[in-house]
Amino acid sequence: MNKDHKYMNAALKEAQKAYDKGEVPVGAVIVLNNKIIARAHNLKTSKKQATHHAEILAIQKASKRIGDWRLDECDMYVTLEPCPMCAGAIIQSRLKRLVFGALDPKGGSVVSCQRMFEVKGYNHYPEVTIGIKEKECSDILTDFFKNMRNQNKSNNKFGIMK
Amino acid sequence: MNKDHKYMNAALKEAQKAYDKGEVPVGAVIVLNNKIIARAHNLKTSKKQATHHAEILAIQKASKRIGDWRLDECDMYVTLEPCPMCAGAIIQSRLKRLVFGALDPKGGSVVSCQRMFEVKGYNHYPEVTIGIKEKECSDILTDFFKNMRNQNKSNNKFGIMK
Repeated sequence: MNKDHKYMNAALKEAQKAYDKGEVPVGAVIVLNNKIIARAHNLKTSKKQATHHAEILAIQKASKRIGDWRLDECDMYVTLEPCPMCAGAIIQSRLKRLVFGALDPKGGSVVSCQRMFEVKGYNHYPEVTIGIKEKECSDILTDFFKNMRNQNKSNNKFGIMK
Repeated sequence: MNKDHKYMNAALKEAQKAYDKGEVPVGAVIVLNNKIIARAHNLKTSKKQATHHAEILAIQKASKRIGDWRLDECDMYVTLEPCPMCAGAIIQSRLKRLVFGALDPKGGSVVSCQRMFEVKGYNHYPEVTIGIKEKECSDILTDFFKNMRNQNKSNNKFGIMK
């Protein structure tokens, strides 16, 4: 298995942890010198924090681990295309490389809604690799939303308002 | 004094706290129903976290305070034009209105480097007011960087490498 697939599998394991907590299943890991130094998953709903996306939490863990806000020798693997907040955090933390799996037409800010890493005037631009294990990264999201819709239908049979 | 000037003064007080800690002086407050529910200032260097901009910390405090990641009835006042990460966090937390003081040609993502709140495909766009107490918001930054340059020069007289 190549390196990118190996680390994306680790990000997928994080996405599964989010799934199991009822969170939109997105996971991320940060790699330095061929070692995972941070793992995180989306915790927005359970922590009631819009900022608690997998990428932000992974960046914070990695910085805590190495004692520096600069992550310029680190690569991030994330299952879903980053939103504008997370793409911005990747710029701010100067991550060397971003690898993501599935595209996000509803907010993705690397290629979908905008190409943030091509905007002139920012002080850092990561290398980008797209589509690693895209199907698995996309399938876990599709499955999550399908289950959520089914749960809602099933609850409604008993007259519970969502 | 009108409401916007009053809350921007509170944001400027936060910026001064950052200044006193040797941090780039940017401050923010979040207002709900004419009451400040969160105050924060930039802590990037002291906390060694690229994500610890005033806006992100203010959003996290406000969400903790009201127990909800949705800040759709809240307004943010910040002394400097938000970077892409913070502009993205404003979208994610669904803040109703953003008021900022000084423009940031090096990274500002509301009007300077890009107009993030005009990008199609995001699920929320705040109202924006620009230039409230612009001179004070800008002056504290100019003063900070001038002092930093002078300190560097003075240190170099004694042969200290920066």
